[in-house]
Amino acid sequence: METMTEDPPLTFPSIWRHKHLLDLERLRSDELHAILKTAQTLKELTDGCRRKLSLLSGKTCANLFFENSTRTRNSFSLAAKRLGADTVEFSSSGSSVAKGETFVDTAKTIEAMGVDWVVTRHSTPGTPHLLARELKCSVLNAGDGPHEHPTQGLLDILTILQHRGPSNWTSDEVDPSELLAGMTIAMVGDIAHSRTARSNIWGLKALGAKVIICGPPTLVSHRWEEIGFEVAHRLDDIVQHCDVLNLLRIQFERQSTRPFPSVREYAALYAMNGDRMRRAKDNILIMAPGPINRGVEITPEVADGPHSVILEQVTNGIAVRMAALWLLAGANDQL
Amino acid sequence: METMTEDPPLTFPSIWRHKHLLDLERLRSDELHAILKTAQTLKELTDGCRRKLSLLSGKTCANLFFENSTRTRNSFSLAAKRLGADTVEFSSSGSSVAKGETFVDTAKTIEAMGVDWVVTRHSTPGTPHLLARELKCSVLNAGDGPHEHPTQGLLDILTILQHRGPSNWTSDEVDPSELLAGMTIAMVGDIAHSRTARSNIWGLKALGAKVIICGPPTLVSHRWEEIGFEVAHRLDDIVQHCDVLNLLRIQFERQSTRPFPSVREYAALYAMNGDRMRRAKDNILIMAPGPINRGVEITPEVADGPHSVILEQVTNGIAVRMAALWLLAGANDQL
Amino acid sequence: METMTEDPPLTFPSIWRHKHLLDLERLRSDELHAILKTAQTLKELTDGCRRKLSLLSGKTCANLFFENSTRTRNSFSLAAKRLGADTVEFSSSGSSVAKGETFVDTAKTIEAMGVDWVVTRHSTPGTPHLLARELKCSVLNAGDGPHEHPTQGLLDILTILQHRGPSNWTSDEVDPSELLAGMTIAMVGDIAHSRTARSNIWGLKALGAKVIICGPPTLVSHRWEEIGFEVAHRLDDIVQHCDVLNLLRIQFERQSTRPFPSVREYAALYAMNGDRMRRAKDNILIMAPGPINRGVEITPEVADGPHSVILEQVTNGIAVRMAALWLLAGANDQL
Repeated sequence: METMTEDPPLTFPSIWRHKHLLDLERLRSDELHAILKTAQTLKELTDGCRRKLSLLSGKTCANLFFENSTRTRNSFSLAAKRLGADTVEFSSSGSSVAKGETFVDTAKTIEAMGVDWVVTRHSTPGTPHLLARELKCSVLNAGDGPHEHPTQGLLDILTILQHRGPSNWTSDEVDPSELLAGMTIAMVGDIAHSRTARSNIWGLKALGAKVIICGPPTLVSHRWEEIGFEVAHRLDDIVQHCDVLNLLRIQFERQSTRPFPSVREYAALYAMNGDRMRRAKDNILIMAPGPINRGVEITPEVADGPHSVILEQVTNGIAVRMAALWLLAGANDQL
Repeated sequence: METMTEDPPLTFPSIWRHKHLLDLERLRSDELHAILKTAQTLKELTDGCRRKLSLLSGKTCANLFFENSTRTRNSFSLAAKRLGADTVEFSSSGSSVAKGETFVDTAKTIEAMGVDWVVTRHSTPGTPHLLARELKCSVLNAGDGPHEHPTQGLLDILTILQHRGPSNWTSDEVDPSELLAGMTIAMVGDIAHSRTARSNIWGLKALGAKVIICGPPTLVSHRWEEIGFEVAHRLDDIVQHCDVLNLLRIQFERQSTRPFPSVREYAALYAMNGDRMRRAKDNILIMAPGPINRGVEITPEVADGPHSVILEQVTNGIAVRMAALWLLAGANDQL
Repeated sequence: METMTEDPPLTFPSIWRHKHLLDLERLRSDELHAILKTAQTLKELTDGCRRKLSLLSGKTCANLFFENSTRTRNSFSLAAKRLGADTVEFSSSGSSVAKGETFVDTAKTIEAMGVDWVVTRHSTPGTPHLLARELKCSVLNAGDGPHEHPTQGLLDILTILQHRGPSNWTSDEVDPSELLAGMTIAMVGDIAHSRTARSNIWGLKALGAKVIICGPPTLVSHRWEEIGFEVAHRLDDIVQHCDVLNLLRIQFERQSTRPFPSVREYAALYAMNGDRMRRAKDNILIMAPGPINRGVEITPEVADGPHSVILEQVTNGIAVRMAALWLLAGANDQL
């Protein structure tokens, strides 16, 4: 039987000051590096995110989700439990909000129950930032509309670093802003509605990667070019140049009008399939934030093939969430 | 990192005999005092209901809620977890009751899974009393229709004692029936549908307070006068005399007909607002069981003002629920 | 206060090799015996399934239920918690499946979060077998359509053994295939839609019992006779010969057409009532998998009478689920 590691050799990074994790756009490269290194260490200390530590025992993490989610919610819950914390679930249905309470009052009530972190998802961009101003406990953004989903961006970047980062990427010696220098990474698909895309884009850029934004003109604004990113409208134009493809799901639930004629047409232009794999680099990494729609953005032979790291992304999700919870608690003077 | 206090200096009150907590109407003042003192001690031992003890480790608390609730349900869950117990959630939707099982059979089945407490909420008054007769484990009433909500009454009273009680209120020397002597406390609003009102009224009376029941004639029965309470139909008539106002939410979901012409008219007569604050005592306490409807029973300037103790009530909810779980387990010979 | 037993005297049965629990049809009698003995030991070590051990601490059990359930789901959760494991809940509503993800992708995603067991319920027979082929972690079938519900079969058999098994039934000396020799056990009611019936039938047969399958011709196939079971269409024909009656619920939710004229007619022919009790053996055991429908398959005087072991079945459900989790983890080289 495993025993709990009471005192894992984990050093708090001196540069970390944030008590909230709201977006990646405003994090510096050394701050991103600090989270990613901590995530890697915690992954190793927990035997691949499977075993339990007691670093955060006695603390409580509240999930306050106003959009359906089981995957992200459970990933945060498991991350908290892996570090010994308790979890408590709040949802919008059947809750006080239905009785006329404001969102901030709901969150303050949860905080008053003695929680240490509020993890929140909401369809309105900026809600976590609002909560961060109103609460004394730590706030983690688990997705605010199409804006950002910072832990998803971090887990994607962690997966890239594990496969393509310099061998000493966890060292303090590296220049964080050059960690992904020379890498070309494409975000493919429904950029307009994707908080995952936005968190990836800012994080990847800060670490020195070249980011290509690829998708139908209806789903990719040309404003991205104005602020320095490459935009492509055909996957065939870029597939041979990319080190990493991150294949986004079409978020039909966020669209009021159809952004392309049919799913079949979308797949013809943007699905990663066997034919395109043969034109890709030999060591291309295939990523997808999931849930994947087989036959739409990715075919089964690619999803289940040797270049796919989709399930590693899921495991890394536990790692970065453990890291975030631990770092925020530390910055909040709670350790 | 915090460590668990294995042996907190907590003394079981010798007068406590109950294995169920069903209502406040039938508790004596010394019994109320015992719960409140225990709650205060547990709040302090848990650093304001934030840290974890192991007093009840290995035990299991089952939530059996037949009405929507996240606030009270989670408060009980957190209280159980703060003392080291496990929790398990049952709800009416998708459960055995939908397959034709009786309420008592459902509860007995849960008990047979080895739980130590059943916390129950039901729209029918008396259901917790029914369960208490049928089960061997402890039963806690978390609201039975408009009848009682004893832990809500206790947390309100605990909040009053912390602010206005005699400095030695936790001492064994005080006369519990005089703890709130000289205090005038008004329950304002939808008395007819409020289990919170009823639990407060019986508890406050037992501890010596003067209770005023204030609301529209359609929501306040004159039977309250017959049994010795003061009834008022205008907040303006009483606001200057009160030490505490407890502002109830209008429970539209419990009303079959509208008890007043409009929310605007209700607010004009009963909302606690800045104008009425200026006519109130200097040290008036503003309470609300929540969720609050800003602009209906309370305006934002009052809810967020210095006299409001609404969020302290939430924290005290954890404290009284920890106390109740611990006392009932002790009386059930389980400690 | 109870303390956790760190090292309970529990020996892993050398014959146990399975890392999944999918059905009872393909388990040998010595394998059934191994689970049942382990369940009995764990029930005793946990003081009747009430106290907590740490045998599986640090591990995580995921519930992946695609049919409504609170009873079975919570029984598995409690079993996991009683052995120190954490639990995490996934359900179909609001999950990734609604966003187009396949069932297997959902399960693989959950596995990638580092869980040790996936407990699954699905309306399609064979889904747990499918998952077992795709996942590296252990899979437990908590009901696959009308096919099997192996832990329900085991808990029913454990209850029979406790009351009617040989006094040395937990000994290694007994012949498992003769454990229930001489016992006549009838499964009564909706055999066609009952996974409980099927798991009981295979398990009971393997341990040497005589099994009678009793119900309306529309709900009992004559194929059962062809494979060696006795079929009856009137409870009155068999009641005096039975040592155990297992009274199944009519699963209206699984039926597309009415299999009998009315509930009243069904009850007249198949309900176990006081009159039939008087014609039964003196020591007959009355069982029901629950939730029971009083007045349909069983009358209150029988359900609440001295021969009923319905609530013991519930407690034994925790015991067999603890045993299954522990044995599968051991076979999966995780202990």
